[in-house]
Amino acid sequence: MSDNLMKVPLEVSARHVHLSQKDQDALFGEGYVMNIMKELSQSGQWAAEERVTVRGPKGEVTARVLGPCRRQTQVEMSKTDCLKVGIEPTLRLSGNLVGTPGCNLIGPAGEVKLEEGVLVAKRHVHMSEEEAEARGLKKDDIVSVRIPGERGLTFHEVHVRVDASFRLSAQFDTDEGNAAWLDVTGGEGEIIK
Amino acid sequence: MSDNLMKVPLEVSARHVHLSQKDQDALFGEGYVMNIMKELSQSGQWAAEERVTVRGPKGEVTARVLGPCRRQTQVEMSKTDCLKVGIEPTLRLSGNLVGTPGCNLIGPAGEVKLEEGVLVAKRHVHMSEEEAEARGLKKDDIVSVRIPGERGLTFHEVHVRVDASFRLSAQFDTDEGNAAWLDVTGGEGEIIK
Repeated sequence: MSDNLMKVPLEVSARHVHLSQKDQDALFGEGYVMNIMKELSQSGQWAAEERVTVRGPKGEVTARVLGPCRRQTQVEMSKTDCLKVGIEPTLRLSGNLVGTPGCNLIGPAGEVKLEEGVLVAKRHVHMSEEEAEARGLKKDDIVSVRIPGERGLTFHEVHVRVDASFRLSAQFDTDEGNAAWLDVTGGEGEIIK
Repeated sequence: MSDNLMKVPLEVSARHVHLSQKDQDALFGEGYVMNIMKELSQSGQWAAEERVTVRGPKGEVTARVLGPCRRQTQVEMSKTDCLKVGIEPTLRLSGNLVGTPGCNLIGPAGEVKLEEGVLVAKRHVHMSEEEAEARGLKKDDIVSVRIPGERGLTFHEVHVRVDASFRLSAQFDTDEGNAAWLDVTGGEGEIIK
Protein backbone atom coordinates (compact mmCIF):
# COMPACT_ATOMS: atom_id res chain seq x y z
CA MET A 1 0.00 0.00 0.00
CA SER A 2 1.43 3.38 -0.90
CA ASP A 3 2.27 5.67 1.97
CA ASN A 4 0.26 8.36 0.28
CA LEU A 5 -2.94 6.36 0.58
CA MET A 6 -2.62 6.34 4.37
CA LYS A 7 -2.34 10.11 4.69
CA VAL A 8 -5.38 11.66 6.38
CA PRO A 9 -6.53 15.28 6.80
CA LEU A 10 -6.79 16.29 10.46
CA GLU A 11 -9.65 18.25 11.97
CA VAL A 12 -10.15 19.59 15.48
CA SER A 13 -13.73 20.02 16.71
CA ALA A 14 -14.35 22.75 19.25
CA ARG A 15 -17.16 22.14 21.72
CA HIS A 16 -20.56 22.05 20.04
CA VAL A 17 -24.13 20.82 20.35
CA HIS A 18 -26.42 18.93 18.02
CA LEU A 19 -30.03 19.80 18.91
CA SER A 20 -33.22 17.81 18.52
CA GLN A 21 -35.98 19.79 16.82
CA LYS A 22 -37.91 19.85 20.10
CA ASP A 23 -34.96 21.25 22.04
CA GLN A 24 -34.19 23.77 19.28
CA ASP A 25 -37.80 24.97 19.50
CA ALA A 26 -37.46 25.37 23.26
CA LEU A 27 -34.11 27.17 23.08
CA PHE A 28 -34.65 29.37 20.03
CA GLY A 29 -38.44 29.40 19.53
CA GLU A 30 -40.66 27.41 17.20
CA GLY A 31 -39.96 27.93 13.53
CA TYR A 32 -36.55 29.44 14.20
CA VAL A 33 -34.13 29.03 11.28
CA MET A 34 -30.42 28.84 12.11
CA ASN A 35 -27.94 31.07 10.30
CA ILE A 36 -25.36 28.87 8.64
CA MET A 37 -21.82 30.09 9.32
CA LYS A 38 -20.01 27.43 7.31
CA GLU A 39 -20.38 24.03 5.74
CA LEU A 40 -18.41 21.27 7.45
CA SER A 41 -16.21 18.67 5.80
CA GLN A 42 -18.90 16.00 6.16
CA SER A 43 -21.52 16.53 3.48
CA GLY A 44 -24.77 18.14 4.57
CA GLN A 45 -23.41 19.18 7.98
CA TRP A 46 -22.96 22.83 8.95
CA ALA A 47 -22.00 25.07 11.81
CA ALA A 48 -24.48 27.79 12.78
CA GLU A 49 -23.75 31.34 13.88
CA GLU A 50 -25.84 30.54 16.96
CA ARG A 51 -24.51 29.35 20.28
CA VAL A 52 -26.09 28.00 23.44
CA THR A 53 -24.91 28.09 27.03
CA VAL A 54 -24.04 24.73 28.60
CA ARG A 55 -24.42 24.89 32.35
CA GLY A 56 -23.09 22.32 34.81
CA PRO A 57 -22.96 22.26 38.62
CA LYS A 58 -19.70 24.28 38.73
CA GLY A 59 -19.94 26.67 35.81
CA GLU A 60 -20.89 27.22 32.22
CA VAL A 61 -19.43 27.49 28.73
CA THR A 62 -20.91 28.47 25.39
CA ALA A 63 -21.07 25.97 22.55
CA ARG A 64 -21.77 26.40 18.86
CA VAL A 65 -24.86 24.79 17.33
CA LEU A 66 -24.22 22.28 14.52
CA GLY A 67 -26.95 21.27 12.11
CA PRO A 68 -29.15 19.85 10.85
CA CYS A 69 -31.23 18.71 13.85
CA ARG A 70 -30.76 15.17 15.13
CA ARG A 71 -33.06 12.71 16.82
CA GLN A 72 -31.55 13.42 20.24
CA THR A 73 -29.65 16.41 21.58
CA GLN A 74 -25.92 15.77 22.06
CA VAL A 75 -23.31 18.04 23.68
CA GLU A 76 -19.68 17.39 22.72
CA MET A 77 -17.09 18.94 25.01
CA SER A 78 -13.47 18.33 25.92
CA LYS A 79 -12.47 16.82 29.25
CA THR A 80 -11.07 20.27 30.11
CA ASP A 81 -14.54 21.76 29.57
CA CYS A 82 -16.25 19.01 31.59
CA LEU A 83 -13.94 19.52 34.58
CA LYS A 84 -14.50 23.29 34.39
CA VAL A 85 -18.29 23.06 34.53
CA GLY A 86 -18.39 20.08 36.90
CA ILE A 87 -19.79 17.42 34.57
CA GLU A 88 -18.29 13.91 34.77
CA PRO A 89 -16.20 13.44 31.59
CA THR A 90 -17.62 10.46 29.73
CA LEU A 91 -15.78 9.12 26.69
CA ARG A 92 -18.20 7.92 23.99
CA LEU A 93 -18.59 7.50 20.30
CA SER A 94 -20.85 10.20 18.96
CA GLY A 95 -24.49 9.05 19.09
CA ASN A 96 -23.97 6.60 21.97
CA LEU A 97 -25.73 8.60 24.65
CA VAL A 98 -27.24 6.03 27.03
CA GLY A 99 -25.97 6.68 30.53
CA THR A 100 -24.10 9.89 29.70
CA PRO A 101 -24.50 12.83 32.11
CA GLY A 102 -26.94 15.67 31.51
CA CYS A 103 -26.69 19.45 31.80
CA ASN A 104 -28.76 22.57 31.37
CA LEU A 105 -28.84 24.29 28.00
CA ILE A 106 -29.80 27.94 27.78
CA GLY A 107 -30.82 29.68 24.56
CA PRO A 108 -32.33 33.05 23.73
CA ALA A 109 -35.92 31.74 23.96
CA GLY A 110 -35.69 29.31 26.85
CA GLU A 111 -33.92 26.62 28.78
CA VAL A 112 -33.79 22.84 28.49
CA LYS A 113 -32.79 20.36 31.18
CA LEU A 114 -31.05 17.41 29.52
CA GLU A 115 -31.14 14.15 31.45
CA GLU A 116 -28.35 12.75 29.29
CA GLY A 117 -26.36 13.76 26.24
CA VAL A 118 -23.00 15.22 27.32
CA LEU A 119 -19.99 13.30 26.02
CA VAL A 120 -16.31 13.61 25.25
CA ALA A 121 -16.03 12.28 21.70
CA LYS A 122 -13.91 9.21 21.09
CA ARG A 123 -11.37 10.01 18.44
CA HIS A 124 -12.39 8.68 15.07
CA VAL A 125 -11.69 8.80 11.38
CA HIS A 126 -14.46 9.31 8.87
CA MET A 127 -14.33 7.73 5.45
CA SER A 128 -16.60 6.60 2.63
CA GLU A 129 -17.02 2.92 1.72
CA GLU A 130 -14.67 3.42 -1.23
CA GLU A 131 -12.05 5.17 0.89
CA ALA A 132 -12.21 2.37 3.46
CA GLU A 133 -11.92 -0.37 0.88
CA ALA A 134 -8.94 1.26 -0.84
CA ARG A 135 -7.13 1.25 2.51
CA GLY A 136 -8.08 -2.27 3.54
CA LEU A 137 -10.24 -0.90 6.34
CA LYS A 138 -13.83 -1.43 7.39
CA LYS A 139 -16.41 0.03 9.77
CA ASP A 140 -15.45 -0.23 13.47
CA ASP A 141 -11.80 -1.07 12.82
CA ILE A 142 -9.44 0.51 15.36
CA VAL A 143 -6.36 2.23 13.94
CA SER A 144 -3.67 4.66 15.04
CA VAL A 145 -3.02 8.10 13.55
CA ARG A 146 0.48 9.56 13.71
CA ILE A 147 0.76 13.35 13.92
CA PRO A 148 4.07 14.93 12.94
CA GLY A 149 5.63 18.06 14.41
CA GLU A 150 7.36 19.49 17.45
CA ARG A 151 4.65 18.08 19.70
CA GLY A 152 4.18 14.99 17.57
CA LEU A 153 2.32 11.98 18.89
CA THR A 154 0.48 8.88 17.75
CA PHE A 155 -3.17 8.59 18.69
CA HIS A 156 -4.22 4.96 19.27
CA GLU A 157 -7.79 3.73 19.71
CA VAL A 158 -8.99 5.68 16.66
CA HIS A 159 -12.38 4.33 15.60
CA VAL A 160 -13.04 3.92 11.86
CA ARG A 161 -16.48 5.27 10.95
CA VAL A 162 -17.71 4.49 7.46
CA ASP A 163 -20.69 6.12 5.78
CA ALA A 164 -21.63 7.06 2.24
CA SER A 165 -21.85 10.72 3.33
CA PHE A 166 -18.39 10.76 4.96
CA ARG A 167 -15.20 12.19 3.53
CA LEU A 168 -11.75 11.12 4.71
CA SER A 169 -10.94 13.08 7.86
CA ALA A 170 -9.51 12.26 11.29
CA GLN A 171 -11.39 14.06 14.04
CA PHE A 172 -10.10 15.14 17.43
CA ASP A 173 -11.27 17.41 20.20
CA THR A 174 -9.47 20.54 21.42
CA ASP A 175 -7.55 18.75 24.19
CA GLU A 176 -6.20 16.31 21.62
CA GLY A 177 -5.56 19.07 19.10
CA ASN A 178 -3.68 21.17 21.65
CA ALA A 179 -1.72 18.17 22.95
CA ALA A 180 -0.56 17.58 19.35
CA TRP A 181 -0.11 21.31 18.66
CA LEU A 182 -2.62 21.24 15.80
CA ASP A 183 -4.44 24.20 14.39
CA VAL A 184 -8.22 23.94 14.21
CA THR A 185 -8.02 23.17 10.51
CA GLY A 186 -5.21 21.80 8.47
CA GLY A 187 -2.41 19.42 8.88
CA GLU A 188 -2.12 15.87 7.78
CA GLY A 189 -1.52 12.68 9.72
CA GLU A 190 -0.86 9.09 8.79
CA ILE A 191 -3.15 6.15 9.47
CA ILE A 192 -1.34 3.16 10.94
CA LYS A 193 -3.13 -0.19 10.91
CA MET B 1 16.51 -4.51 28.68
CA SER B 2 13.60 -5.66 30.83
CA ASP B 3 10.22 -4.16 30.02
CA ASN B 4 9.86 -3.24 33.63
CA LEU B 5 12.86 -0.93 33.50
CA MET B 6 11.16 1.19 30.86
CA LYS B 7 7.99 1.77 32.89
CA VAL B 8 7.60 5.37 34.00
CA PRO B 9 5.20 7.06 36.44
CA LEU B 10 3.04 9.72 34.75
CA GLU B 11 2.33 13.16 36.15
CA VAL B 12 0.08 15.93 34.87
CA SER B 13 0.99 19.50 35.79
CA ALA B 14 -1.84 21.98 36.06
CA ARG B 15 -1.02 25.59 35.22
CA HIS B 16 1.42 27.13 37.69
CA VAL B 17 3.99 29.87 38.19
CA HIS B 18 7.54 29.87 39.50
CA LEU B 19 8.27 33.33 40.94
CA SER B 20 11.52 35.23 41.26
CA GLN B 21 12.07 36.59 44.79
CA LYS B 22 11.60 40.12 43.43
CA ASP B 23 8.27 39.28 41.80
CA GLN B 24 7.13 37.37 44.88
CA ASP B 25 7.88 40.45 46.97
CA ALA B 26 5.85 42.62 44.58
CA LEU B 27 2.90 40.21 44.44
CA PHE B 28 2.76 39.06 48.07
CA GLY B 29 4.77 41.65 49.98
CA GLU B 30 8.37 41.61 51.19
CA GLY B 31 9.15 38.86 53.66
CA TYR B 32 6.05 36.90 52.75
CA VAL B 33 6.37 33.16 53.44
CA MET B 34 4.34 30.80 51.26
CA ASN B 35 2.16 28.13 52.81
CA ILE B 36 3.26 24.76 51.49
CA MET B 37 0.31 22.68 50.32
CA LYS B 38 2.31 19.61 49.25
CA GLU B 39 5.75 18.40 48.32
CA LEU B 40 6.17 17.53 44.64
CA SER B 41 7.77 14.40 43.21
CA GLN B 42 10.99 16.29 42.42
CA SER B 43 12.98 16.71 45.62
CA GLY B 44 12.88 20.12 47.25
CA GLN B 45 10.01 21.36 45.06
CA TRP B 46 6.61 22.16 46.52
CA ALA B 47 3.21 23.57 45.61
CA ALA B 48 1.94 26.51 47.68
CA GLU B 49 -1.58 27.18 48.87
CA GLU B 50 -1.22 30.58 47.19
CA ARG B 51 -2.34 31.44 43.68
CA VAL B 52 -1.82 34.41 41.41
CA THR B 53 -3.96 35.76 38.60
CA VAL B 54 -2.45 35.52 35.11
CA ARG B 55 -3.96 38.21 32.87
CA GLY B 56 -3.65 38.30 29.09
CA PRO B 57 -5.25 40.57 26.47
CA LYS B 58 -8.44 38.46 26.31
CA GLY B 59 -8.94 37.18 29.83
CA GLU B 60 -7.42 35.77 32.94
CA VAL B 61 -6.90 32.53 34.83
CA THR B 62 -5.55 31.72 38.27
CA ALA B 63 -2.38 29.69 38.67
CA ARG B 64 -0.84 28.00 41.67
CA VAL B 65 2.56 29.15 42.95
CA LEU B 66 5.32 26.53 42.99
CA GLY B 67 8.45 26.97 45.08
CA PRO B 68 11.12 27.65 45.96
CA CYS B 69 11.79 30.93 44.11
CA ARG B 70 13.74 30.82 40.86
CA ARG B 71 16.05 33.26 39.15
CA GLN B 72 13.34 34.34 36.70
CA THR B 73 9.57 34.18 36.89
CA GLN B 74 8.02 31.52 34.65
CA VAL B 75 4.34 30.88 33.90
CA GLU B 76 3.46 27.40 32.62
CA MET B 77 0.04 27.09 31.01
CA SER B 78 -1.64 24.78 28.53
CA LYS B 79 -2.36 25.87 24.97
CA THR B 80 -6.05 25.85 25.95
CA ASP B 81 -5.25 28.41 28.68
CA CYS B 82 -3.15 30.55 26.32
CA LEU B 83 -5.91 30.72 23.72
CA LYS B 84 -8.45 31.62 26.40
CA VAL B 85 -6.46 34.58 27.74
CA GLY B 86 -5.11 35.67 24.36
CA ILE B 87 -1.43 34.87 24.83
CA GLU B 88 0.45 33.31 21.89
CA PRO B 89 1.10 29.65 22.83
CA THR B 90 4.86 29.12 22.81
CA LEU B 91 6.23 25.60 23.23
CA ARG B 92 9.45 25.58 25.26
CA LEU B 93 11.50 23.52 27.62
CA SER B 94 11.10 24.86 31.13
CA GLY B 95 13.72 27.54 31.82
CA ASN B 96 14.14 28.55 28.18
CA LEU B 97 12.35 31.89 28.37
CA VAL B 98 14.08 34.12 25.81
CA GLY B 99 11.51 35.42 23.35
CA THR B 100 8.49 33.97 25.14
CA PRO B 101 5.43 36.23 25.55
CA GLY B 102 4.71 38.18 28.72
CA CYS B 103 1.58 38.74 30.78
CA ASN B 104 0.39 40.56 33.87
CA LEU B 105 0.50 38.79 37.21
CA ILE B 106 -1.76 39.95 40.02
CA GLY B 107 -1.25 39.00 43.66
CA PRO B 108 -2.77 40.16 46.95
CA ALA B 109 -0.09 42.85 47.45
CA GLY B 110 0.47 44.09 43.93
CA GLU B 111 0.87 43.53 40.23
CA VAL B 112 3.83 42.65 38.01
CA LYS B 113 4.12 43.17 34.27
CA LEU B 114 6.22 40.33 32.82
CA GLU B 115 7.94 41.13 29.54
CA GLU B 116 8.55 37.43 28.96
CA GLY B 117 8.07 34.15 30.77
CA VAL B 118 4.85 32.47 29.59
CA LEU B 119 5.38 29.06 28.02
CA VAL B 120 3.65 25.81 27.21
CA ALA B 121 6.00 23.18 28.61
CA LYS B 122 7.56 20.69 26.24
CA ARG B 123 6.80 17.23 27.44
CA HIS B 124 9.72 15.70 29.27
CA VAL B 125 10.81 12.88 31.50
CA HIS B 126 12.83 13.52 34.65
CA MET B 127 15.40 11.05 35.87
CA SER B 128 18.53 10.84 37.96
CA GLU B 129 21.94 10.03 36.44
CA GLU B 130 21.64 6.48 37.74
CA GLU B 131 18.12 6.04 36.34
CA ALA B 132 19.27 7.35 32.95
CA GLU B 133 22.30 5.10 32.85
CA ALA B 134 20.31 2.00 33.79
CA ARG B 135 18.04 2.69 30.80
CA GLY B 136 20.77 3.51 28.31
CA LEU B 137 19.61 7.13 28.20
CA LYS B 138 21.36 10.45 28.66
CA LYS B 139 20.50 14.15 29.04
CA ASP B 140 18.71 15.66 26.03
CA ASP B 141 17.82 12.34 24.43
CA ILE B 142 14.42 12.36 22.76
CA VAL B 143 12.18 9.38 23.50
CA SER B 144 8.52 8.39 23.18
CA VAL B 145 6.19 7.48 26.03
CA ARG B 146 3.29 5.13 25.40
CA ILE B 147 0.17 5.62 27.49
CA PRO B 148 -2.28 2.71 27.76
CA GLY B 149 -6.04 2.93 28.09
CA GLU B 150 -9.24 3.72 26.25
CA ARG B 151 -7.75 6.98 25.00
CA GLY B 152 -4.28 5.54 24.68
CA LEU B 153 -1.61 7.33 22.69
CA THR B 154 2.15 7.53 22.28
CA PHE B 155 3.77 10.88 22.98
CA HIS B 156 6.81 11.47 20.78
CA GLU B 157 9.35 14.31 21.21
CA VAL B 158 9.70 13.63 24.92
CA HIS B 159 12.83 15.35 26.21
CA VAL B 160 15.01 13.46 28.70
CA ARG B 161 16.05 15.74 31.58
CA VAL B 162 18.71 14.39 33.91
CA ASP B 163 19.63 15.89 37.27
CA ALA B 164 20.81 14.54 40.59
CA SER B 165 17.66 15.95 42.25
CA PHE B 166 15.26 14.32 39.76
CA ARG B 167 13.18 11.22 40.29
CA LEU B 168 11.83 9.14 37.41
CA SER B 169 8.62 10.78 36.20
CA ALA B 170 7.13 11.69 32.81
CA GLN B 171 5.53 15.12 32.89
CA PHE B 172 2.66 16.42 30.78
CA ASP B 173 0.33 19.40 30.83
CA THR B 174 -3.44 19.25 31.23
CA ASP B 175 -4.15 19.23 27.48
CA GLU B 176 -1.88 16.22 27.12
CA GLY B 177 -3.27 14.59 30.25
CA ASN B 178 -6.86 15.05 29.09
CA ALA B 179 -6.06 13.89 25.55
CA ALA B 180 -4.69 10.68 27.08
CA TRP B 181 -7.49 10.46 29.69
CA LEU B 182 -5.02 10.60 32.56
CA ASP B 183 -5.80 11.58 36.10
CA VAL B 184 -3.68 14.33 37.62
CA THR B 185 -1.64 11.76 39.50
CA GLY B 186 -1.16 8.12 38.84
CA GLY B 187 -0.84 5.85 35.94
CA GLU B 188 2.19 4.40 34.33
CA GLY B 189 3.55 4.65 30.80
CA GLU B 190 6.35 3.01 28.90
CA ILE B 191 9.45 4.74 27.59
CA ILE B 192 10.23 3.81 23.99
CA LYS B 193 13.68 4.66 22.68
